[in-house]
Amino acid sequence: MKILFIGDVVGSPGRDMIQEYLPKLKDKYRPNMIIINGENAASGKGITEKIYKQFLEWGAHVITMGNHTWDKKEIFEFIDDAKNMIRPANFPEGNPGKGITFMNINGTKVAVINLQGRTFLPAIDDPFQKVDELIAEAKKRTNIIFLDFHAEATSEKQAMGWYVDGRVSCIVGTHTHTQTADERILPGGTGYITDVGMTGPYDGVLGVERELVLKRFKTNLPVRFDIDKKGRTQLNGLVVTIDKNIGHAKKVERILINDDHTFFE
Amino acid sequence: MKILFIGDVVGSPGRDMIQEYLPKLKDKYRPNMIIINGENAASGKGITEKIYKQFLEWGAHVITMGNHTWDKKEIFEFIDDAKNMIRPANFPEGNPGKGITFMNINGTKVAVINLQGRTFLPAIDDPFQKVDELIAEAKKRTNIIFLDFHAEATSEKQAMGWYVDGRVSCIVGTHTHTQTADERILPGGTGYITDVGMTGPYDGVLGVERELVLKRFKTNLPVRFDIDKKGRTQLNGLVVTIDKNIGHAKKVERILINDDHTFFE
Amino acid sequence: MKILFIGDVVGSPGRDMIQEYLPKLKDKYRPNMIIINGENAASGKGITEKIYKQFLEWGAHVITMGNHTWDKKEIFEFIDDAKNMIRPANFPEGNPGKGITFMNINGTKVAVINLQGRTFLPAIDDPFQKVDELIAEAKKRTNIIFLDFHAEATSEKQAMGWYVDGRVSCIVGTHTHTQTADERILPGGTGYITDVGMTGPYDGVLGVERELVLKRFKTNLPVRFDIDKKGRTQLNGLVVTIDKNIGHAKKVERILINDDHTFFE
Amino acid sequence: MKILFIGDVVGSPGRDMIQEYLPKLKDKYRPNMIIINGENAASGKGITEKIYKQFLEWGAHVITMGNHTWDKKEIFEFIDDAKNMIRPANFPEGNPGKGITFMNINGTKVAVINLQGRTFLPAIDDPFQKVDELIAEAKKRTNIIFLDFHAEATSEKQAMGWYVDGRVSCIVGTHTHTQTADERILPGGTGYITDVGMTGPYDGVLGVERELVLKRFKTNLPVRFDIDKKGRTQLNGLVVTIDKNIGHAKKVERILINDDHTFFE
Ligand SMILES: [Fe+2]
Ligand SMILES: [Fe+2]
Ligand SMILES: [Fe+2]
Ligand SMILES: [Fe+2]
Ligand SMILES: [Fe+2]
Ligand SMILES: [Fe+2]
Ligand SMILES: [Fe+2]
Ligand SMILES: [Fe+2]
Repeated sequence: MKILFIGDVVGSPGRDMIQEYLPKLKDKYRPNMIIINGENAASGKGITEKIYKQFLEWGAHVITMGNHTWDKKEIFEFIDDAKNMIRPANFPEGNPGKGITFMNINGTKVAVINLQGRTFLPAIDDPFQKVDELIAEAKKRTNIIFLDFHAEATSEKQAMGWYVDGRVSCIVGTHTHTQTADERILPGGTGYITDVGMTGPYDGVLGVERELVLKRFKTNLPVRFDIDKKGRTQLNGLVVTIDKNIGHAKKVERILINDDHTFFE
Repeated sequence: MKILFIGDVVGSPGRDMIQEYLPKLKDKYRPNMIIINGENAASGKGITEKIYKQFLEWGAHVITMGNHTWDKKEIFEFIDDAKNMIRPANFPEGNPGKGITFMNINGTKVAVINLQGRTFLPAIDDPFQKVDELIAEAKKRTNIIFLDFHAEATSEKQAMGWYVDGRVSCIVGTHTHTQTADERILPGGTGYITDVGMTGPYDGVLGVERELVLKRFKTNLPVRFDIDKKGRTQLNGLVVTIDKNIGHAKKVERILINDDHTFFE
Repeated sequence: MKILFIGDVVGSPGRDMIQEYLPKLKDKYRPNMIIINGENAASGKGITEKIYKQFLEWGAHVITMGNHTWDKKEIFEFIDDAKNMIRPANFPEGNPGKGITFMNINGTKVAVINLQGRTFLPAIDDPFQKVDELIAEAKKRTNIIFLDFHAEATSEKQAMGWYVDGRVSCIVGTHTHTQTADERILPGGTGYITDVGMTGPYDGVLGVERELVLKRFKTNLPVRFDIDKKGRTQLNGLVVTIDKNIGHAKKVERILINDDHTFFE
Repeated sequence: MKILFIGDVVGSPGRDMIQEYLPKLKDKYRPNMIIINGENAASGKGITEKIYKQFLEWGAHVITMGNHTWDKKEIFEFIDDAKNMIRPANFPEGNPGKGITFMNINGTKVAVINLQGRTFLPAIDDPFQKVDELIAEAKKRTNIIFLDFHAEATSEKQAMGWYVDGRVSCIVGTHTHTQTADERILPGGTGYITDVGMTGPYDGVLGVERELVLKRFKTNLPVRFDIDKKGRTQLNGLVVTIDKNIGHAKKVERILINDDHTFFE
């Protein structure tokens, strides 16, 4: 079982990269399943129903989210009907949507979980306590569990990695929009990376026009963070190969496509 | 001109890695200059004079620091005499030590600067304003400028990268203890990486015993963060090759040594 | 039913004020019950068993705590046996101690609850969700419920006040060490104050020697925060009068004793 | 010299209170000068030119601001011409407007300074360093200096109070929208209060409809914070009497007008 995960897609530059490279990545890696983090897909802030459906059409099986889940107002209209979308499961009671979903991939059941960290982020429910509940729920139905842990601090992400080691097939970090070079298989058999990185502008700051971010840092004045649409683009992802029977990761490969790392088929 | 930079050395496991691999790295890369971030060198918190001198003996030219600079009380006794040590230059007035130093490397002058970010970190002086001053000061004497920007947020580090692009030879991020995969040469000629990563334990959380960090995350109880001395170790670094005349980076290579990435000579 | 509450007692200057003024306050207000926040009672950081017992001897019925609960290591030895001590109930699972206690005051049962806020404080369990559980538990046994909400942000404290209005007899804020002038009875019958203030040094910064705090703010250097023992002292408290039958507050009076507000018997 | 200061005016309920009570306060206290914090005057977020001019017409001499200074876009159009408006002086270079102003009050010069804290607020320039510069500038022209320190943390406000004691006539805290009961004259002769409080809704949370704030705290969902326009209102202020010659405070009185504290003429 091979799962291709694509990190935070930012605006139209990110969506264009998906459209262009998803077919090529399918050809190259032959994944059985595709998961995309879509929290920044609509102009950097949230997602629309149209984009969500587009992602599914292009071949995604599950869309995960993060702290930008509710940025586009229309999400409240469609999330409860969006079977293939999950948002962090530890959002407090009263939040629409769900944080875990089960997919049938060629007769094999796969659980996908989305959680959010709390260090340098809002004080939502405890992700460590929540992950125990969700793993227990998932284990009743499958050993193949994929977790997108949307978090800022490297400490919280690595702690979560060790915490679920041997219990989930793969945990990927998202949110910092910067790929880390620490992909590995933890001793218990869980695939791990602190952050997959982002998909979209290559010459911005996390996808935003760099002049705007610099103005913000230098003056603290309010600035509208527009997506950088003038520059070059990148795609960041990860492919994990999972032993279908025991649910352990056998191989983890980072994907990095940009002008400094050309894609080879 | 080749500079080898080694990311946050954590405790004795980190120092042991330096002792073992620095000779091998010298053989392999033949760097003209070696810079080590030593803010966690003494049991994870700060640095002692003995360790500082040990690093110099082993071949380091400059030791950079960060938010843990003052963790060991004896630092106040020796920092003002430690010519080869710099701490973040934007620490407020009244802080001992200095934030910029100039080295003569085979007749070539190299400026090394240390700065600290403010996002998710204490509100010290503005690093963007400070870097302008320091670059101006350095430019009077040399075009070869190396910057260790000790910061948490990927946004602040990337913003700083773009801000100094074309003005410094290389900027490396430190502090998250996790190497990023985004090393590159920015369009203006500046070598860049969001974080070099750490040198020390490979199976802890940022170097700390993982059970302790997990206890902290799960209970919020006070926990003494001991360095993981039982597990395997890693070394994270970067080599930048700089055009001696114009001070631009010609090549940036990540170094990652651990059980998943064997060192080849 | 009259309850006297005394705000965060800081170090020996705070304990001395309790010893001196508690008899006078008993004479003046004739409270049926006395509650003291003791999170800073031992040199500003935590509490010892000796101080805890001293408070009870002096007439306190319940000691509440806060974010400094675990500062003194010996707390772990005695808190589970300290029947009259509560710490924030929304500390995560795995924390010793309890967050609610019931006292018999002349044949009347009184519930005392301690909770901690999360704004500008660690991400513990949700105090709003927890207070619902605890009120439900208390209501089975009594209508007289007193809540010490240890929190930083005025917004979170006022939100909690409105949230429990009509359901608890009185909610007092603690933690900022600064008495607010907004004591009132909310429309539903709940006594309220954003912060009761502190008991201890009058010429420090929250009880700490002001030169030390200023050094910290000006340099960001590490500073040991010693209690100001040279200066004058203050006592901050509140008396609430509660209708024993329906549990509503009938009267709320601030107590402020310092050189600018002399105590009159 | 008597100065009347009115705390953060929130939306139309706050402006209505000013219109109604300013004449009465003038009658009662006969202030020589009126200063209003207007950072929330326009629907809770920022200020408009119309409201600014209205405040002046009603008798205000100076309008101070805070972290909400730039919330209304039109501020960028008029602030550089608004002689009687100041915003925090330690906003970084590149911010429009100014942070100090001098007024002639019946032949006496008065300096008014606005600064903002950094604890739990954005990392702007150091207010302690800035206040030294501004006091030096002011002292060249007058001994009567009034400082509005817009800050969250009680520690930072009290530290600033002690820092400027004997150097300014009066320092008032703003921003928490909750009046503190600790008004006093510090030993060096400076009038002080940690927070003056707010002017506007009395039954909201810092002026915002309480149901909205509770929804936010309970779910972390995005919520538009509308001003509470249905409930009762309050006015919070302070009158300081200053010795015109040496610039020391002789008397500090809190003003609190609401349904629990009726205004008496
Ligand atoms: Fe994102
Ligand atoms: Fe995110
Ligand atoms: Fe470090
Ligand atoms: Fe660090
Ligand atoms: Fe306290
Ligand atoms: Fe506290
Ligand atoms: Fe305000
Ligand atoms: Fe404010």
